[in-house]
Order: sequence, then structure tokens, then C-alpha cells
Amino acid sequence: MNAITDPSAALIETAARAAKAAAAELARAPRPAKDAALRAAAAALRATAPAILAANAEDLAAAPDLSAAFRDRLTLTRSRIEAMAAGLEEMAELPDPVGRVLSEWTRPNGLLIRRIAQPIGVIGMIFESRPNVAADAAGLCLKSGNAVILRGGRESLRSVAAIHAAMVAGLREAGLPEAAVQVAPTADRAFVGAMLRAAGLIDLIIPRGGKGLVTRVMEEARVPVLAHAEGLCHTYVHAAAEPEMARAILANAKMRRTGVCGATETLLIDAAIAPSLLPLLVADLRALGCDFRADARARAVCPELPAASEQDFATEWLDAILSIAVVDGVPAALDHIRRYGSEHTEAIVTADAAAAAEFLNGLASAVGLVNASTQFCDGGEFGFGAEIGIATGRLHARGPVGLEQLCTYRYHVLGTGQTRP
Amino acid sequence: MNAITDPSAALIETAARAAKAAAAELARAPRPAKDAALRAAAAALRATAPAILAANAEDLAAAPDLSAAFRDRLTLTRSRIEAMAAGLEEMAELPDPVGRVLSEWTRPNGLLIRRIAQPIGVIGMIFESRPNVAADAAGLCLKSGNAVILRGGRESLRSVAAIHAAMVAGLREAGLPEAAVQVAPTADRAFVGAMLRAAGLIDLIIPRGGKGLVTRVMEEARVPVLAHAEGLCHTYVHAAAEPEMARAILANAKMRRTGVCGATETLLIDAAIAPSLLPLLVADLRALGCDFRADARARAVCPELPAASEQDFATEWLDAILSIAVVDGVPAALDHIRRYGSEHTEAIVTADAAAAAEFLNGLASAVGLVNASTQFCDGGEFGFGAEIGIATGRLHARGPVGLEQLCTYRYHVLGTGQTRP
Repeated sequence: MNAITDPSAALIETAARAAKAAAAELARAPRPAKDAALRAAAAALRATAPAILAANAEDLAAAPDLSAAFRDRLTLTRSRIEAMAAGLEEMAELPDPVGRVLSEWTRPNGLLIRRIAQPIGVIGMIFESRPNVAADAAGLCLKSGNAVILRGGRESLRSVAAIHAAMVAGLREAGLPEAAVQVAPTADRAFVGAMLRAAGLIDLIIPRGGKGLVTRVMEEARVPVLAHAEGLCHTYVHAAAEPEMARAILANAKMRRTGVCGATETLLIDAAIAPSLLPLLVADLRALGCDFRADARARAVCPELPAASEQDFATEWLDAILSIAVVDGVPAALDHIRRYGSEHTEAIVTADAAAAAEFLNGLASAVGLVNASTQFCDGGEFGFGAEIGIATGRLHARGPVGLEQLCTYRYHVLGTGQTRP
Repeated sequence: MNAITDPSAALIETAARAAKAAAAELARAPRPAKDAALRAAAAALRATAPAILAANAEDLAAAPDLSAAFRDRLTLTRSRIEAMAAGLEEMAELPDPVGRVLSEWTRPNGLLIRRIAQPIGVIGMIFESRPNVAADAAGLCLKSGNAVILRGGRESLRSVAAIHAAMVAGLREAGLPEAAVQVAPTADRAFVGAMLRAAGLIDLIIPRGGKGLVTRVMEEARVPVLAHAEGLCHTYVHAAAEPEMARAILANAKMRRTGVCGATETLLIDAAIAPSLLPLLVADLRALGCDFRADARARAVCPELPAASEQDFATEWLDAILSIAVVDGVPAALDHIRRYGSEHTEAIVTADAAAAAEFLNGLASAVGLVNASTQFCDGGEFGFGAEIGIATGRLHARGPVGLEQLCTYRYHVLGTGQTRP
């Protein structure tokens, strides 16, 4: 379909052209202007909280048959609005990621070459019905000098529109182009497809939501995508683990929050330590409400555990369920992770530095941890201040995606009349 | 189509699985092993030069109706084989891009976070009938720890197979997995389509060739692509340009080699300096065999120049033709570049530092130069030692793609028992 026959393509072209012009202006905006816009947007969120809550109530009323979890994600409260506002103010405090000299060198012919961070351009943010994502994503894009087109879930459109109004108020007050933060002009599902096909108009698509949404985006997109596919994370308790440390780390890695991508889904434990430690680990987790799927060797130690199927080890539970396998040393643990893992985040618990190094060096995962919880895979915990998501691909960025990862680079080459031989 | 009904999909799956296993091994290979493989492959290229030349003669004999330029690209000679071998030996001298600590910081909770360069994984290299690309690409992938599947143009298959044999001999001699460098097992065109759809099996596709090939790859690929789309480069001669420098730079930027992507296609010249300088620039280039397409204001200065159409300014000539437009200062030059350019490489010639800064800051292009030729946009000239291509997208890498750009990163996080609050 072309723009004449496909109204969504025409709409995205108009939106993206305005966004591109705004992005060019935003890319050159000095830090104080961007920070002023963030702070003004935070103030506008607070000032218009009654209107945002009213829009949210309309969204909720229009969709009475939602599940409890869906309703919870869709629902805004005073404190959630305050959290969005505070998040924008925190972004204003972060250093400007744009214009950093990433590296610099001089060639024998005298050319000085500088690699400089710059915004990516126009970002298409496609997310499910969690309206607060609109403020977080808009703020991160603004701070990193990118324009953004927000397309939230259909059930959240009124809430997102109200939040968008506050973001635009912030841009206006700071004298920045209002088209830098846009919302989808239509609830039509075809608009998402048009965004995904908008190569040359949108520079990057970031999907945020469940596996269905992300899979659709990755399959259909003609535009580069920075996506979170799957987080099937492992905690490997090595034979030389300090038992109390292993207990504390596993309980946290599995049960702190079970629905986050950095939650541990599978425990690998060395055969040498399983007889003494596995019963304690299981008891700890059972007390926290966790269920189990164990291989035959783990059931030889703890016969009461339910048996795991092959498929269980390939399952991202996102729930209070732990798969357990007994292994024989680091190479076997790495084999298991290569076979079933998603290259997201894996941890080893060990007091043996050589084993830790062997484990880290053998991993292809975005994040490998030694003696720490897999739940640390998070932009805030990495010190990025905030994150727009976690990337599970191999290109551009891996792991938490913060302001720095929302930038690309360009080269400035300073000469004195050089020509190429 | 699935693997059962599509023989190409089954072939690529087999090849890519072997490549993935080889890539995992290569990612951990120490530098001496990789360098030994490169040097042994160079020796094998020299030792098997007669066989390579014979294969090349068969390729040439099998395709008698090629254009002269095509034949030239396809033809191998003793000196071209020597250049390939020397190129591999030069790569062996370059620093290992894998394992570099890109940054490192400690969090308030004591976690030490390291961002470390690592290979991307399995690269699919799709190129036209220039057999030497096989050696260059295989060498760069090997040095950067990536496995590669090479798919050259149909006319070059025997030549590429003979070069591939030398690369495999090098891997074998160094004790590295032979599946790290593979060639397409079939000349079937459907194999290219299967490579482009091999998401999850191939991590990155790099196309190298004409616009037709690159456009097909960018439109069809379900795998991330690092591509060179277009190089419509500008040289802007500012009012404060030193005239002799402008003459030398423009002649080099346009005429050193007209078929390379960094060649200048359009001259922008300030109205203030055009009356005195444009006739000299035109005379210089005309003496070198260049033709022109000039806007009305340029023709007011040099009436003998042919008139440019709007389309001429949007044309990447890759030939001895120069589009010329007269502009009024930096903002007008930037407007022209934004309207017609491809965000590849642009240069300003000026003695005015403020104008140079204004120009650089206003550009979105991958490379902006001050007082130097646009033909410097090249991996070798940037000091990368060698390049696998030039990237024109916004994600992952921009400009010359060398060993560093053939890497991604991962995080190692070192703790002492930390759990997340």
C-alpha cells in the first residue's frame, strides 16, 4: 500500500516528517533547554493531575472486562503521577548524553578525528496499556535529543493523551519544538503496522510489552528494532559457593519480583554441593511461595520435588516457579545455558575466582554476574538513572538501554587542507 | 516456507548452526591463534595462487558476456592475490578488538560493572562478483572473532571457493574451527533469501555491492543489516575559504576516484566567493575530465555550464559529473544538504572557525570534515587498518566499519553477595 491508499501510511508520514524536523532542532538544543522542558513537564503533570486521572477513569470505564493485572497496569493514581513527575526531574539531573567525545585521535597526515555521541533521530515507541511508559519514554527521548512518536495500547489512549499534553506543555515552556513528542493520531491498529514499515521516516522502533507485541514488532518491522525478546536467566551455584551467600542470592534472584525479565528462572547447582545445599535452597524458596520443576539428579537429593520436562528448562516462567538441574562444573553449566538460555543475564555464586572467570568468559549473555542477584540487570541499578527497556539483540546495545544507548555517533574530522593520495 | 519445504532454509540452518558453534569457540580464541590463522591463510593464498587463478579463469570463461567493468572486478591476478595475502597479514598486526574493557565503574553497593567488547556472532556477507571481498571479509570477521557465511555473486563462485579453501587451511593450521569461515553451499538465488530470513541463526547481514543488491537486502532482511545505502556527498566552499586550498580539496574530493562512496557529488559555494573562485574550480575539474550540472546562480557566473535539474541534486553520480549550487552562508548550505543529501560525508572549506563549527554542529551526517577531502571517509584513512564497508544507517555503527564496529559488548558484574533491595 502507498500513502494514497493507506491512510495510516499518510498519517505516519506526516507525523514522522514533523518529528524529523523537531529532532534536528532537539539534537542541537543545549542541555539547559532540555532540562527546563523536563522540569516544566513534571510541573505540568502535577498541575494537570486531576485531568489525567479523569482521562484514566474514562479509559477504565470504557474497558470493563479487563483482567485484574491489566487493570492494575492501566490504572493511574496520584502517587503514580507523582512518580512520573519525579522521574522526569531525575532525568533533568542526569548528564547530557549528546555531544560527548567518545574517542579522538590524530592521523599521521594531521587529520584530527573525533567520534561524537549524537541522538538517533526519530524513535517509534510502541507499548502496551501502561500509561506511565509514555512519560518515561518521552522524557528519556527528550533528554537524549530524540523525537518520539508514542503509540500506547488502545485501552490507554485517553490517559496517554493527557500525559502527552503535559509533555508538550514542558516543550513549549522551554521553547523546544512541540512535535518532538507526539502521540499516534489514531487508535487504528493499522497505524502500528505503518510505523513498523516507516523505513527512512522512523529511525528506531522500541517495543515494550508482552511477548506477543514484541514478536509482532520483530517480525513485521522494516525499521531497526531495539527489543526485549526473552529473559530466561540462570543462577549457577558452584561447588565452591559460600552457602549463606548462595541462599541469599537465589532467594532474591528468584523471588524479589518474579515478573521481571532479570528474575532467575533456572537454578543450576553443582553435584558436589547439591546434597548439602539444595535442600536449604528449596526450603528457603518454598517458604517464600515458590514451586519447583527438578531434573532427576535434583530429585535424587530432594525426592519431593516435581519432575521437570525438557520444555520446562526452555520456559521463562515470570512466576514463582524455579527449574532446577544438577550439573558437574562450569563447562556443564555453560552447556545448559547455551542450550536453553536467552543470552540475557546469568549469575554464578562461587568463592573460586578461577571458576568465576571461566564462567564469565564462556558466556555470550548480555550480562554475567559473579556473586550477585540476576535482578540487578536494570538501568537504574547499573547507574544509568533510568532505562527505556532492556535489549536482547546483538546489535547497537545490549542489556539496559539508558540515555547513552539512545544515542548513535558521528565523526568530526578537522583538517588543514589535506587531500587523499 | 519452512525448512522442510524450502531446501535453502534447511541449508542455511545447517550452515548457521555450524557457524554458531564455531563463533562460540572463536569468541574465546586467544589473539595468537587468530593471528596465526590469518598468516597461515595468507601463505595458503600465495601457495595456491595457481589454483585460484585457474578457478578464476573458469569463472571468466563461463560468463563471456560481461561488461568490461564487471570483468575487471571479477578478474584475479597474481598481484591481486598478493594484495589479499598482504591484507590478511596486516590484519594480524592490528590489535585484538575482542575483550577490550570499554568502560568500568563501581556502584554505591560495591558492584563493579565492566562493559567488554565481544564478537557479534555469525555474520552473513552478501557481495557481488569481486572475489577479493571474500578474503577481506573473512579476515576481518576472523580477527574480530565472528564466524562468517560468504555469499558472493554467482559469476565468482569458483574463485570464491578457491579463496575459501585458503582461509580454511589457515584456520586448520591454527587449530581453529573450520566452520568459522563458510561459503554458501549452493549458487541458488533462493539461498540469499534464506540468509536474509535467518533471524536467530545469523546475527548480522552485511551487503556489499551496487544499489540493487543493497536495496533488496534492506527490504527483505529479517536479520539486522549494516548497509551502505548511498553516498551523496557535498563539499561546501565557504566565503572565507582559502582559494588554493579549496581548489586542491575539491579536485581531490571529486576526481581522485569518482566511483567511491566518499566522492563529492555536489559543490556548494557561497555567493560571496563564487564570482572569483567558481571559474577556477570549474577549469581545474574540466581539465581533469569532469562534466557539470549547475543551478541558475552558478550559471550566472559561468554561463557555459549545463543547467542542473532538481533531480540532478538528488543524484549520486559515481562518475565524473559535479552538481553545483550557489548558496548564501552556512544555514543555506545545511538546508541544501538536509534536502538532497544522504547523511554520508560532507566537507566545508573555510578559514573561519566559527563557520566550521556551525557547519559541523548542523550536520546529521556520519562524517563531517573541515578543510579536507570527502574521500577520506575510509576505514584505512581513519586508522582502522581495514574496513568491511561503510555504514549509512543510524544504529550500531556509522561511517567506516572496521574491527571495532564488528564487535558488540556484554557486561561483567562482580559482586560480593549483593542482593537487590
